[in-house]
Amino acid sequence: MTYGQGRTYKKVEVIGVSSGGIEAAIQQAVTKAQQSLQKLSWFEVQEVRGHIGDDGKVNEYQVVIKVAFELK
Amino acid sequence: MTYGQGRTYKKVEVIGVSSGGIEAAIQQAVTKAQQSLQKLSWFEVQEVRGHIGDDGKVNEYQVVIKVAFELK
Amino acid sequence: MTYGQGRTYKKVEVIGVSSGGIEAAIQQAVTKAQQSLQKLSWFEVQEVRGHIGDDGKVNEYQVVIKVAFELK
Amino acid sequence: MTYGQGRTYKKVEVIGVSSGGIEAAIQQAVTKAQQSLQKLSWFEVQEVRGHIGDDGKVNEYQVVIKVAFELK
Amino acid sequence: MTYGQGRTYKKVEVIGVSSGGIEAAIQQAVTKAQQSLQKLSWFEVQEVRGHIGDDGKVNEYQVVIKVAFELK
Amino acid sequence: MTYGQGRTYKKVEVIGVSSGGIEAAIQQAVTKAQQSLQKLSWFEVQEVRGHIGDDGKVNEYQVVIKVAFELK
Amino acid sequence: MTYGQGRTYKKVEVIGVSSGGIEAAIQQAVTKAQQSLQKLSWFEVQEVRGHIGDDGKVNEYQVVIKVAFELK
Amino acid sequence: MTYGQGRTYKKVEVIGVSSGGIEAAIQQAVTKAQQSLQKLSWFEVQEVRGHIGDDGKVNEYQVVIKVAFELK
Amino acid sequence: MTYGQGRTYKKVEVIGVSSGGIEAAIQQAVTKAQQSLQKLSWFEVQEVRGHIGDDGKVNEYQVVIKVAFELK
Amino acid sequence: MTYGQGRTYKKVEVIGVSSGGIEAAIQQAVTKAQQSLQKLSWFEVQEVRGHIGDDGKVNEYQVVIKVAFELK
Amino acid sequence: MTYGQGRTYKKVEVIGVSSGGIEAAIQQAVTKAQQSLQKLSWFEVQEVRGHIGDDGKVNEYQVVIKVAFELK
Amino acid sequence: MTYGQGRTYKKVEVIGVSSGGIEAAIQQAVTKAQQSLQKLSWFEVQEVRGHIGDDGKVNEYQVVIKVAFELK
Repeated sequence: MTYGQGRTYKKVEVIGVSSGGIEAAIQQAVTKAQQSLQKLSWFEVQEVRGHIGDDGKVNEYQVVIKVAFELK
Repeated sequence: MTYGQGRTYKKVEVIGVSSGGIEAAIQQAVTKAQQSLQKLSWFEVQEVRGHIGDDGKVNEYQVVIKVAFELK
Repeated sequence: MTYGQGRTYKKVEVIGVSSGGIEAAIQQAVTKAQQSLQKLSWFEVQEVRGHIGDDGKVNEYQVVIKVAFELK
Repeated sequence: MTYGQGRTYKKVEVIGVSSGGIEAAIQQAVTKAQQSLQKLSWFEVQEVRGHIGDDGKVNEYQVVIKVAFELK
Repeated sequence: MTYGQGRTYKKVEVIGVSSGGIEAAIQQAVTKAQQSLQKLSWFEVQEVRGHIGDDGKVNEYQVVIKVAFELK
Repeated sequence: MTYGQGRTYKKVEVIGVSSGGIEAAIQQAVTKAQQSLQKLSWFEVQEVRGHIGDDGKVNEYQVVIKVAFELK
Repeated sequence: MTYGQGRTYKKVEVIGVSSGGIEAAIQQAVTKAQQSLQKLSWFEVQEVRGHIGDDGKVNEYQVVIKVAFELK
Repeated sequence: MTYGQGRTYKKVEVIGVSSGGIEAAIQQAVTKAQQSLQKLSWFEVQEVRGHIGDDGKVNEYQVVIKVAFELK
Repeated sequence: MTYGQGRTYKKVEVIGVSSGGIEAAIQQAVTKAQQSLQKLSWFEVQEVRGHIGDDGKVNEYQVVIKVAFELK
Repeated sequence: MTYGQGRTYKKVEVIGVSSGGIEAAIQQAVTKAQQSLQKLSWFEVQEVRGHIGDDGKVNEYQVVIKVAFELK
Repeated sequence: MTYGQGRTYKKVEVIGVSSGGIEAAIQQAVTKAQQSLQKLSWFEVQEVRGHIGDDGKVNEYQVVIKVAFELK
Repeated sequence: MTYGQGRTYKKVEVIGVSSGGIEAAIQQAVTKAQQSLQKLSWFEVQEVRGHIGDDGKVNEYQVVIKVAFELK
């Protein structure tokens, strides 16, 4: 990539869900998105949420991210 | 669905337009999005707008929503 | 188009990059998006950013826009 | 109206109050604004609020909108 | 109530869920909140969301509101 | 005023400037707006800014407010 | 209090109303909230509004604050 | 103008439309607003949008601005 | 729970503080809130802050969350 | 200063703390910032917070402002 | 630069003023900031404002940007 | 520190980058900022972003924070 050259990127919004923490939820979303989209370049966290089990433990993190990739 | 299991969702932004009110505009967007996307799970309203006719009546509601569905 | 008729639009988020200024970056994004998406109707600017070269000159503008098109 | 021609619009903020629901409150504001302003083109909802009566019923909706019209 | 007199209000955030539309969801939240809280004065809508059934129909509206009441 | 009756309000944005503090700047804006507009009902503060003199003293407060009045 | 020790705080939203200015309205809310809640630690201003009398004078300030206290 | 003297400004929201770029759309709105309002002092950009023609070219920029002027 | 049935939830804002990271601070808040409130369903992160010790190490994370539970 | 001439300003964020009210906290921040920075031109309030003593009195106001000065 | 390596950047807020348009105002701010700060990497536009002359012409653009540079 | 005493703090915006997760990126920024600034008191997270490698793994977290310190 050379700065100054015309390029176009697209951002899509995905939500990763994981019991393993915030970073794990981000990676979950990125891995899945990579399967159906083009090669991803970066992500931006939009929201962090989660579910609480009957025992009062956070049993999953739900992280809404935007992922971006170049439109070749 | 079991909480705690890794899952991924995608959100897309659609705008439903209807003369029948805000709920009708939401349903318009959901029905159309369901045709080309996967089975939808939920929606979030982003903006409510509308057009005003020459007679000063609101003749359509334009509701911007995000709809979400699971990436299997 | 007749106001009051049921219609649905979709918005997608794209980023145009150009050394030629903000308007050129918007056109870059629109032109590219038009290739893979349906006929576009309008855009909304979300963010304006850019890169600065070693010589202290802005060498590219990166403009994040949403583009909208009708789902027929 | 032809796209690309120089035009100017003005937006003013009005609040419609009605016991008949959100759409009725919007129409209330539009009808009143049409009397003193020029012919209105569109509206954008800013806030939805309301009053609760002693019996625990919502007895009016207060909808803040912006209405737009062309400055000829 | 006389304007200018010292008074204090409290706002709490509740979510009403109803299949009957946005106004019905607001009333659901207000009615329930009225049971455990003091007499309510007004509400402010924060978010409008909903669930989509397998048949592509919105089967419930979830409306997040703040309700306010005077602390006597 | 009776709750539930159809009514319409208008909000306009004014900026009061005063050396006498934030409340004085609000009153400055309200007094002036009252001269050219109809009887005002309430205000909402949007922004608080000010100018700093050469001696490092705040020499005026600039308070942006919206004022609302009923459209009879 | 020692930094690094597990602690939990709660925030509640209250509105103080006073004819005596913004600081007086904040103190009004804090004093009242202290009566029914636990010992308060800090506040954060959310909104400043007010009512305007028939004579064009601001006759009360309505300040929405969040107050926080430790959950022991 | 002397800092510290009581003054009042008003802000109104206008939208300039031009095929000539963002600055041209701002000037379009300012020129038109100047005709019906008092002498304008400054503007603040709120939103930048535009329309896309059938040929995939941006054929007009729509820039929402607030313009401010002193209430003498 | 069956979608479409009338239900009401309440959200309260709590702050968890922990030296063990962001997830630990969230769990701290959830565990404490569960003691005095009803069974919690989900949380939403509002703010992430923290304190820095004299040695330049982050010695606690302060995470502001909203927790939600059903009003039965 | 002549409008239209190239100029550059810098904004820095400071927090003034004072027991004397909001205006006193702003002046506290401005006075201190003036000592280490260049001559200041204006300020913009970002947040108003404060601490509450054991007696339920607001014992200090903490006002976050941005101050701006010209880079000569 | 290699992704994954620990790095730190700083952002500062500057305002460029120019009669030559939005891009010229951005370059004005970047050029000036480059003189007193380290080598800049990128910018993000925060606000676009401007002044209007007696003749109703925009006579300068004031663009608030954040510029970022690496802390080596 | 005694509450109620005049004090002033400054906030600066830094970005920590680390492959080790969000907390590691925060500590990276704090450690570096501590070298050139005065003793830091607290931080506030503004944004969480990151880069995605060719293998679809998040290879670095980029966390934008504000750090605050007292101006003595």
